[in-house]
Amino acid sequence: MSIRVHSEPLSVRTKGKGTYEITDQVREIVARSGIAAGTVTVFVQHTSCSLVIMENAAPAARRDLENFFERLVPEDADYEHDDEGPDDSTSHIRMVLTRTSEVIPIVDSRMQLGTWQGIFLFEHRRAAHTRKIAVTVMGD
Amino acid sequence: MSIRVHSEPLSVRTKGKGTYEITDQVREIVARSGIAAGTVTVFVQHTSCSLVIMENAAPAARRDLENFFERLVPEDADYEHDDEGPDDSTSHIRMVLTRTSEVIPIVDSRMQLGTWQGIFLFEHRRAAHTRKIAVTVMGD
Amino acid sequence: MSIRVHSEPLSVRTKGKGTYEITDQVREIVARSGIAAGTVTVFVQHTSCSLVIMENAAPAARRDLENFFERLVPEDADYEHDDEGPDDSTSHIRMVLTRTSEVIPIVDSRMQLGTWQGIFLFEHRRAAHTRKIAVTVMGD
Repeated sequence: MSIRVHSEPLSVRTKGKGTYEITDQVREIVARSGIAAGTVTVFVQHTSCSLVIMENAAPAARRDLENFFERLVPEDADYEHDDEGPDDSTSHIRMVLTRTSEVIPIVDSRMQLGTWQGIFLFEHRRAAHTRKIAVTVMGD
Repeated sequence: MSIRVHSEPLSVRTKGKGTYEITDQVREIVARSGIAAGTVTVFVQHTSCSLVIMENAAPAARRDLENFFERLVPEDADYEHDDEGPDDSTSHIRMVLTRTSEVIPIVDSRMQLGTWQGIFLFEHRRAAHTRKIAVTVMGD
Repeated sequence: MSIRVHSEPLSVRTKGKGTYEITDQVREIVARSGIAAGTVTVFVQHTSCSLVIMENAAPAARRDLENFFERLVPEDADYEHDDEGPDDSTSHIRMVLTRTSEVIPIVDSRMQLGTWQGIFLFEHRRAAHTRKIAVTVMGD
């Protein structure tokens, strides 16, 4: 075996709140790494957006998810930290309730995602942003 | 050092909603890998069940957890995506609120779980399912 | 490349509920490892505290987060498992809703945390505790 590390930054342009699929971009990084057995770590470098692995076929499932978070962490509640508006503390809380890092096994050069699993950036801000994600593939 | 990668699929039969301990099965994969120092990545390949690391001694603690999720993400709320029944969108949301992947350090051939920590599959569907988990051990 | 594994335990003294930053301690372990490219896995070995990556500049944002969890998982609700008091089941549930493990890429000897990201231990118990965290750095 010859283990190695391959890292690439990934940039995603968001248009405000919602889920944005990044599965293909991560898959391409895994392919470029040439690593056939190991793991890929996906890490979002922000505190007002996050990662989720989610159903990738039905947009309605994602809308239900997004609506659930609007109700669970409502913008019109009373927060102390609102320097950047009503989506300030709510963004941080929604990030904490979801994921910053996700690690996916690679076997026979394939990410071991299930049939219906997609990797999504979950944007919690109303405004458009360019989001940075660090991707590291490690293995043989 | 001689770093290597050892991957094995794990299959878990569930009997509907609830938490199912998989600690022993993961421990056996770590033992079979022969890897004494590194990490084990556990990744559930579905979007309607998830992973949690939870108190493994008191079943009442797990029942409290399961009841909490029934209240937090109630099946009788109004969801757009309900093709597969009232446990459809709720399963995806509960999955997002818990974990898809978990990474546990290995030191001196032992997973570094705390005394009361167990690894559990959290089934969010009412019906029985066979669930697939990808386990990758990497290290020396 | 010469891949290796470096593990160190980390101990954190908490003074009851709240978030405690551990970014510097994790950074020091990464530095001591001498690993320039790879990942660092941070794993909390308890079931009544957890990990979050959170905004590290504004204490008000962390207070909003802590208050949110007090409301989301209230101590005065009806739990079956309360042997150790009203912060017993609530601690486990809050742990499940946040993180047990977090994996952060390392590139050019630097953890790839974003500008405002800090790593925090989230203590869910009222009493002071000494908490153990397993840290494993792997890479080149």
